[in-house]
Amino acid sequence: MKRLAVLASGRGSNLQALVAAQAEGILGDCAIALVVSNRRTALALDRARAAGLPTAIARLGDFPTRSEWDVALDAILAAHRVDLIACAGFEMILGPRVLAGYPLRIVNVHPSLLPSFGGGLTAQSDALSHGVKITGCTVHFVTAEVDAGPIILQRGVPVFDDDDVATISDRILREEHRALPEAIRLLADDRLVVDGRRVRVLPALDRTRSL
Amino acid sequence: MKRLAVLASGRGSNLQALVAAQAEGILGDCAIALVVSNRRTALALDRARAAGLPTAIARLGDFPTRSEWDVALDAILAAHRVDLIACAGFEMILGPRVLAGYPLRIVNVHPSLLPSFGGGLTAQSDALSHGVKITGCTVHFVTAEVDAGPIILQRGVPVFDDDDVATISDRILREEHRALPEAIRLLADDRLVVDGRRVRVLPALDRTRSL
Repeated sequence: MKRLAVLASGRGSNLQALVAAQAEGILGDCAIALVVSNRRTALALDRARAAGLPTAIARLGDFPTRSEWDVALDAILAAHRVDLIACAGFEMILGPRVLAGYPLRIVNVHPSLLPSFGGGLTAQSDALSHGVKITGCTVHFVTAEVDAGPIILQRGVPVFDDDDVATISDRILREEHRALPEAIRLLADDRLVVDGRRVRVLPALDRTRSL
Repeated sequence: MKRLAVLASGRGSNLQALVAAQAEGILGDCAIALVVSNRRTALALDRARAAGLPTAIARLGDFPTRSEWDVALDAILAAHRVDLIACAGFEMILGPRVLAGYPLRIVNVHPSLLPSFGGGLTAQSDALSHGVKITGCTVHFVTAEVDAGPIILQRGVPVFDDDDVATISDRILREEHRALPEAIRLLADDRLVVDGRRVRVLPALDRTRSL
């Protein structure tokens, strides 16, 4: 059973989706072992405590340099014997220490169909003002280049003429809540094969066959 | 009844979709009045002749400069009293004379979900090698900036693990064949309102109401 850390900065609705997926037994061969936030007041921390999950805080402002923040976050993850990491509405860019420690073991959910509208925190409003008719969310491996790691899965949503940032963000978020647990399940079950930039999904092991 | 010119460089399958849509009466308030190619041997020209449509050829190589090609193409369109233009697999970038003559009257169909994979002729293979899980097609107004005009509509398709350029291109093309006639119908029926980069669709006029 692999140990999953969830990194969150905000409301924690994606954390909640992961908690629910675990409760329903559809998170694969892993369990949430830790929730880390860079914000002391993140609602995600309240949700974690309510779910009985260990929490930790790693605020950039508490460290002299970004590098020391990176090392501290790495130490927190190591102390909790973390195997996999889900960035679930995490506004920080991870540092080289954490990235090197978890190669192809960190995933992020981004509120657009990458590569469109990557590289920022305003993907939903950028999509809206660009006038696209389809947007969505992307779960991808986290690499040193922001929002550019190999894509695990994407889910599309329509943009309607009367959408504003709130309505389109909500519609995308509902898909994030399905996509992130599904991607974590595939990762935890060792079903993802990375071939260049393409990520292929292996068939599910039939665990009943050998019984 | 508006007069539509179709510009095509290749097989002309999108032209065929427009011909079929017109025959079925679902192309709105317009009729194909002309097919222009920049290639003398384009299969699109054969399809046009088979459908009894006037054809014209405007080859860049027949003119001393790109500017003179632009003026010649504009003259051809004027001679056929063209109101609307559909770029349907047209590999040339239109010049300033044609662009100025048909503001918000020229549409292009591009085989990706723009702004992803714009600006080139390899959108399908670019999407595949980038590893996206959703791609599709975009019908947009043509402006001076390539593949960047306001988006009229988009249709998405899934990318499967065993796709190659041929299979994904075919899947996208099937959506192009639905999207381009639909966009032309909306344009011909004056139902598109451009607001910044967003294109909104007006409700269909109930043509029976006043009878």
